[in-house]
Amino acid sequence: MDGGKLTTVDLKSIIINDPFWNRYIDLVDYVILPFQWELINDQVEGAEKSYCIRNFRIACGDEKGDHKGMVFQDTDVAKWLEAAAYSLAKKRNPKLEAAADSAIDLIARAQCEDGYLNTYYTITGEKRWSDLLEGHELYTAGHMIEAAVAYYEATGKNKFLHVVCKFADYMCTVFGKEEGKIHGYPGHPEVELALVKLYRVTKMTKYLELADFFVQTRGERPCYFLNEDCVKNQNFIFPEFKDFDLDYNQSHMPLKEQETAEGHAVRAVYLYSAMADLAYEYQDQELLKQCETLWNNIVEKRMYITGSIGSASYGERFTTDYDLPNNSNYSESCATVGLAMFSNRMFQITRDGKYTDIVEKALYNTLLAGIALDGKHFFYVNPLEVVPEIAEKNPTYRHVKTTRQLWFGVACCPPNIARTLASLGNYVYASEQNTVYVNLFVGSRIETDLSSGHVELLLSSDYPVKGDVTLEITPEMDGQEFTVGIRKPSYSGKAELSVNGIKEAVCLEKGYLYLTRKWKAGDKITVVFDVSFRFVRCNPRVRDNIGKVCLMKGPMVYCLEEADNGKYLASDIMDSSVPPKEEFDESLLGGTMCAGLEGMRIDYSRVGDTLYEEERPSYIKDTFKAIPYCCWNNRGKGEMIVWMREK
Amino acid sequence: MDGGKLTTVDLKSIIINDPFWNRYIDLVDYVILPFQWELINDQVEGAEKSYCIRNFRIACGDEKGDHKGMVFQDTDVAKWLEAAAYSLAKKRNPKLEAAADSAIDLIARAQCEDGYLNTYYTITGEKRWSDLLEGHELYTAGHMIEAAVAYYEATGKNKFLHVVCKFADYMCTVFGKEEGKIHGYPGHPEVELALVKLYRVTKMTKYLELADFFVQTRGERPCYFLNEDCVKNQNFIFPEFKDFDLDYNQSHMPLKEQETAEGHAVRAVYLYSAMADLAYEYQDQELLKQCETLWNNIVEKRMYITGSIGSASYGERFTTDYDLPNNSNYSESCATVGLAMFSNRMFQITRDGKYTDIVEKALYNTLLAGIALDGKHFFYVNPLEVVPEIAEKNPTYRHVKTTRQLWFGVACCPPNIARTLASLGNYVYASEQNTVYVNLFVGSRIETDLSSGHVELLLSSDYPVKGDVTLEITPEMDGQEFTVGIRKPSYSGKAELSVNGIKEAVCLEKGYLYLTRKWKAGDKITVVFDVSFRFVRCNPRVRDNIGKVCLMKGPMVYCLEEADNGKYLASDIMDSSVPPKEEFDESLLGGTMCAGLEGMRIDYSRVGDTLYEEERPSYIKDTFKAIPYCCWNNRGKGEMIVWMREK
Repeated sequence: MDGGKLTTVDLKSIIINDPFWNRYIDLVDYVILPFQWELINDQVEGAEKSYCIRNFRIACGDEKGDHKGMVFQDTDVAKWLEAAAYSLAKKRNPKLEAAADSAIDLIARAQCEDGYLNTYYTITGEKRWSDLLEGHELYTAGHMIEAAVAYYEATGKNKFLHVVCKFADYMCTVFGKEEGKIHGYPGHPEVELALVKLYRVTKMTKYLELADFFVQTRGERPCYFLNEDCVKNQNFIFPEFKDFDLDYNQSHMPLKEQETAEGHAVRAVYLYSAMADLAYEYQDQELLKQCETLWNNIVEKRMYITGSIGSASYGERFTTDYDLPNNSNYSESCATVGLAMFSNRMFQITRDGKYTDIVEKALYNTLLAGIALDGKHFFYVNPLEVVPEIAEKNPTYRHVKTTRQLWFGVACCPPNIARTLASLGNYVYASEQNTVYVNLFVGSRIETDLSSGHVELLLSSDYPVKGDVTLEITPEMDGQEFTVGIRKPSYSGKAELSVNGIKEAVCLEKGYLYLTRKWKAGDKITVVFDVSFRFVRCNPRVRDNIGKVCLMKGPMVYCLEEADNGKYLASDIMDSSVPPKEEFDESLLGGTMCAGLEGMRIDYSRVGDTLYEEERPSYIKDTFKAIPYCCWNNRGKGEMIVWMREK
Repeated sequence: MDGGKLTTVDLKSIIINDPFWNRYIDLVDYVILPFQWELINDQVEGAEKSYCIRNFRIACGDEKGDHKGMVFQDTDVAKWLEAAAYSLAKKRNPKLEAAADSAIDLIARAQCEDGYLNTYYTITGEKRWSDLLEGHELYTAGHMIEAAVAYYEATGKNKFLHVVCKFADYMCTVFGKEEGKIHGYPGHPEVELALVKLYRVTKMTKYLELADFFVQTRGERPCYFLNEDCVKNQNFIFPEFKDFDLDYNQSHMPLKEQETAEGHAVRAVYLYSAMADLAYEYQDQELLKQCETLWNNIVEKRMYITGSIGSASYGERFTTDYDLPNNSNYSESCATVGLAMFSNRMFQITRDGKYTDIVEKALYNTLLAGIALDGKHFFYVNPLEVVPEIAEKNPTYRHVKTTRQLWFGVACCPPNIARTLASLGNYVYASEQNTVYVNLFVGSRIETDLSSGHVELLLSSDYPVKGDVTLEITPEMDGQEFTVGIRKPSYSGKAELSVNGIKEAVCLEKGYLYLTRKWKAGDKITVVFDVSFRFVRCNPRVRDNIGKVCLMKGPMVYCLEEADNGKYLASDIMDSSVPPKEEFDESLLGGTMCAGLEGMRIDYSRVGDTLYEEERPSYIKDTFKAIPYCCWNNRGKGEMIVWMREK
């Protein structure tokens, strides 16, 4: 471990103002949070009922009724509170804070005497911790803890934090290696990383130890889950999963022996995030190495170019190396959130830009593709190729939606996207003693305290439309010496850096340009990255992308849509020898940089009705227009393709 | 209707002796029938228990116990009896006949007083006809009737025929449009075509009328199934199908309005076969036209080049036009049997060779691919592209088996393949008044009575290895005048026909070469078809085959296997400008005509470990070996591909 872990910069000290991100950030504050509040309160006409707040009222005794919704329905309010906290950290908002406080009051009242908190088990009276495999109690606890920590950090109010501490204290008496305690661990990891967060804010080591216990115990033989009643009696909460192997939840072998990313993708990356946290906290080099092995397996063999993971719908899971089908994949939005979390943690430990590259890829592509520009419609599943007529008629693709949905029965993704957008600042900067790291090129202003003193940074950029990024520096006092580390994205061959207009030769280390000097107010660093359009190929071991190219600009993946290019996108051939033209389209989605491509299309007017014949189809030259993948499906239903045939 | 329907030639009058088919036919007689008899009697170590015969013993009261197996488990013995009957028709076999007679005795004793026959409902005491949607009573009845008719025709014994007539008589009192009768129809069509067969052998019009009732009533609004208790109470025999739409079983609209092939592929083609039968029997031009429309929809838009159907596993069903994925398809062996049945019926009505072309395609490719050369292992699912590592790890392909299985829980396909092979003669010839039709070029000898007198035909051929077919004719008397119709397969451009060595210009009508003359003993017709290797392309509306070719020889589809060509078949590129070489391989599967191809492969030794990069992979020239698709997977597990990339 090279000397400690970077920390994120306090969200209260970051103001984002960026031509690309503003519209998304604003969506969270002005649309998503109010809308999701209405949703969890069952106030949206036409949307499926959430029952989330109602369950808490019933658990408190305020209302009579049965628990409704999923066993983990409570997490909807937790994720909403976490997103609300991040929003409040940036800017106080009395109305939002009042809503959050009311939810927290309700949660506090729903807590049992002994600290236990879960409306499903409280209302139904089912036996606590009797179904760690699918009961989601610890998963739900984890989201409560994450929310409480965020709310405390944002507002300084500690009521919610006390609630979750009491809950965590109780869990510490229930789980552990000591005799009489449960030697189990959650079917769905999440509480582990949450407990580390709780430890960091409270400094109570028992929380860290409980997280470590859950991680270390996972997958021990004989597998804990096989002795649970739900398995023995084949009485599953989710009967459709009864045939799942243990690798579905990463309990197929002791965790320390796992070297490939397996099973449910969200569970996997939440678990690996906690492993990274523990590797850092315990300075465990072996665990860190394992995290690297798992991360490499994902990024080098099991990740889509859009930063999404999960090649199969059944099990929403990883499958095997180089298996990346473009149209039947799951690529859940939540899994991308988890991949960004895991990667960001790995960067904070290793200071290696290859991890931040993946954070950037995940955020600029799949995370944003998950949300419509109205802020009210979401994708869970993020295919790289869709033909609506087929996706709607062939049940192999029945998980694929051809338009974003208002709100799903299982509402994990929308609030997960919201909390990630609301906490974007956490991904933009990091700092350590006397160094500030610029990870993402998102227009913003931060203040942070380095060992040399207070520093202000103003980042301006039109990234990724343009590749130049300017950092204006305001130290506490002129002549203050500290280091600025600026990520050089791996896609950019060159990276010209100048200070106050004068070119500087700087040290490049693991993807970061480091500049140490005595700064004075008004110093300007300018870096220019190469964000020109480029064609990328896939490793040919991925059978689905053989003979194909993907168009990228900076971190952004581009795609063809039917709205611009007509039908039968799968047969269009791009001429990659012709450089794509930059075509900024004011009318498209509030202004978007598009690409003009040259290529050939099949002349379908001359294609007959025979299914099998001996002739080859004839092609005609044509031009094509590509748009950013994150913007797809904002103009109605239609075909979309990322990997295009190459001439 | 052009003057009546062709009839099949009595199986008793056909002896097949063909270098290609002998090994399969022999398999039925010497391996499959004895083996399946042991299987349905639960005498095979290591195979899943069938319980089929045991259920009948319990139903008779010979044994105590519960019904085990599927609701339609009885059909296993029915299909076995049908195959046994065809085998006995060709050649008496006392041991086989004794086994069949014993099964028939048991069946007769299991029949209820009123004629009802079904071990599941008899043993469980569940209410008869209460679940037409999924109870499979009528489906099971249909297979019993087919078996009984076949057994009667083969042996002249009428015991089994009496049993099914009694059952059918009873069904006629239960179902029908009259008040007090059930206005429903089977969830799984099959009884319809069986009742037509029973009508033809008994001349009892009420059987034909019942078949017609079932067909005409199907899909009437409101849909019968929606008022069944199983649907109203959501109490399904197959709960995994509860979300299925009505098109799954072709009851989504009145049958007369259906113009596209929808739903479960086996159900669809069994139903369409019955429709073709009824169109003929009632001389119903409109119904015939509808059959043509449905058949065209299948063959022009929804059929694999291997003659298989069913693009999706979930629902084992048709999906939509031009949706033909090669690796996630279902392509059930039974559906191919049904397609051959439907197509053969359409030929017999229309005398159009386009139908026989599909019979031939189905039999030479998917039917044979369904069975291993040991006769004991079977495929239900017949993909056109398999990568075992992926099929076994990605649950999207969990229906795909990477090696043939000994016997499945649902044992529809093995006996269905057996009965089709055992009755191959029915597909080889047809006849009408004074014309004999040669449909398939299978070495054989037939005797048949035309209006001009008795005729013997001896067909010799090494088809499809070679394209020349010889027919030696022996009329009852010299100078006897009649017509021989020989199918000219649509793939063959030329077709040179000569009689006794002298070229004859003959009339080609709807794919048949007609030759009418006065024949004398020893006359020899020789036809030469072009069965040289050819590359076939797919309509580019099928996105999965864009830029690819398929190698064919005559009716046979070829494929690449890993055993001959190594891994990563999906990236191999064939040079279609180089004519494939004929390479007969004595060592392969008892002697098989293979193809030597030229092309390029990616040099994987130079492919790096990066997943996404900007370089194109480099290719090296190489040669490839293709084998018939029907022979794949007889040399262990490995990759296989039908549609190959084309240079």
